[in-house]
Amino acid sequence: MAGDDTAIRGLIELMARLPGLGPRSARRAVLALLKRREQLMTPLAAAMAEVARDVRDCRLCGNLTTAELCPICADPARATAEICVVEDVAGLWAMERAGVFRGRYHVLGGTLSALDGIGPEEIGLPRLVARIAQEGVREVILALGATVEGQTTAHYIADALAPSGARVSILARGMPVGGELDYLDDGTIGTALQARHPL
Amino acid sequence: MAGDDTAIRGLIELMARLPGLGPRSARRAVLALLKRREQLMTPLAAAMAEVARDVRDCRLCGNLTTAELCPICADPARATAEICVVEDVAGLWAMERAGVFRGRYHVLGGTLSALDGIGPEEIGLPRLVARIAQEGVREVILALGATVEGQTTAHYIADALAPSGARVSILARGMPVGGELDYLDDGTIGTALQARHPL
Repeated sequence: MAGDDTAIRGLIELMARLPGLGPRSARRAVLALLKRREQLMTPLAAAMAEVARDVRDCRLCGNLTTAELCPICADPARATAEICVVEDVAGLWAMERAGVFRGRYHVLGGTLSALDGIGPEEIGLPRLVARIAQEGVREVILALGATVEGQTTAHYIADALAPSGARVSILARGMPVGGELDYLDDGTIGTALQARHPL
Repeated sequence: MAGDDTAIRGLIELMARLPGLGPRSARRAVLALLKRREQLMTPLAAAMAEVARDVRDCRLCGNLTTAELCPICADPARATAEICVVEDVAGLWAMERAGVFRGRYHVLGGTLSALDGIGPEEIGLPRLVARIAQEGVREVILALGATVEGQTTAHYIADALAPSGARVSILARGMPVGGELDYLDDGTIGTALQARHPL
């Protein structure tokens, strides 16, 4: 109930469909918007409509962008010889936040999954292979999830890229920085022990 | 960073200003919107723009509404002889969710505060007094916060309404339903003990 205006209730119901917002927090968010109509609600509605209208996949890498090319592909300072393959845009954003990679990306849009009928074509692997050859890429970093699907996909891509001569690597596994042994799962401890290196 | 499209980043920054959403959850919310542009993002932007444009204070009670009168004041089935006074629209919505009050409301829009220079005029008390007289209200329920400001305001209103002859009551204090003694603050336990009644 929103006192009980149909339009306001409809807005709350749409907001409640966002991840991290339930009915209660959607209500609080809408109340905050109603209190700040000029400063927040109208600009937010306009920004949302504009992005919804303009957003598209970057024609080169698959990143989401409101331009023809995403800002990363359009940036001449980014290395072209290194490509980081990510499952989705969330992974690309996470890599960019870390601020440690200066090459370009390739967004798969998913992982291989025989069960869901997602094969190499569905996640655009032929396009990736062609791109690696065309752009003279020397290293492909597979930044996929450390999950069964992520690893299956990584191995498939490594095989598909073998003829290209590009070096293919995956992100290291081990203890997260700041992590404590007591809180780690057994799989991570096992992997970190196997991958130990001299100090 | 949002991969790093200016429009998308701007949208995330606006979303992060909502209560309950930080930078991280705003990013997740925007990603969810970007994935569901047709089904969620465009309708949400439109609903938000529409409500921002149409919303106003109900001319009778001060509830927020997109119509001339709020649905409660416009409902002939709601009793006119009982008025529930709330601090703000959040309080009104909470009462309506409880579904136990069938009268009408009066939204103050704040509480008296000498420190902040908020006097009876600022929260429209003369308007409330006039309304009680005009509408022949028989009971005024003061559903204000159980805080110092809420109680100061309640006492002030009770005094101002004394000449009207209307019965003035406040919500009971005591244990919340489902509450356990061990988790209650001392003030609530003291109040609940004083207000004990035979079983």
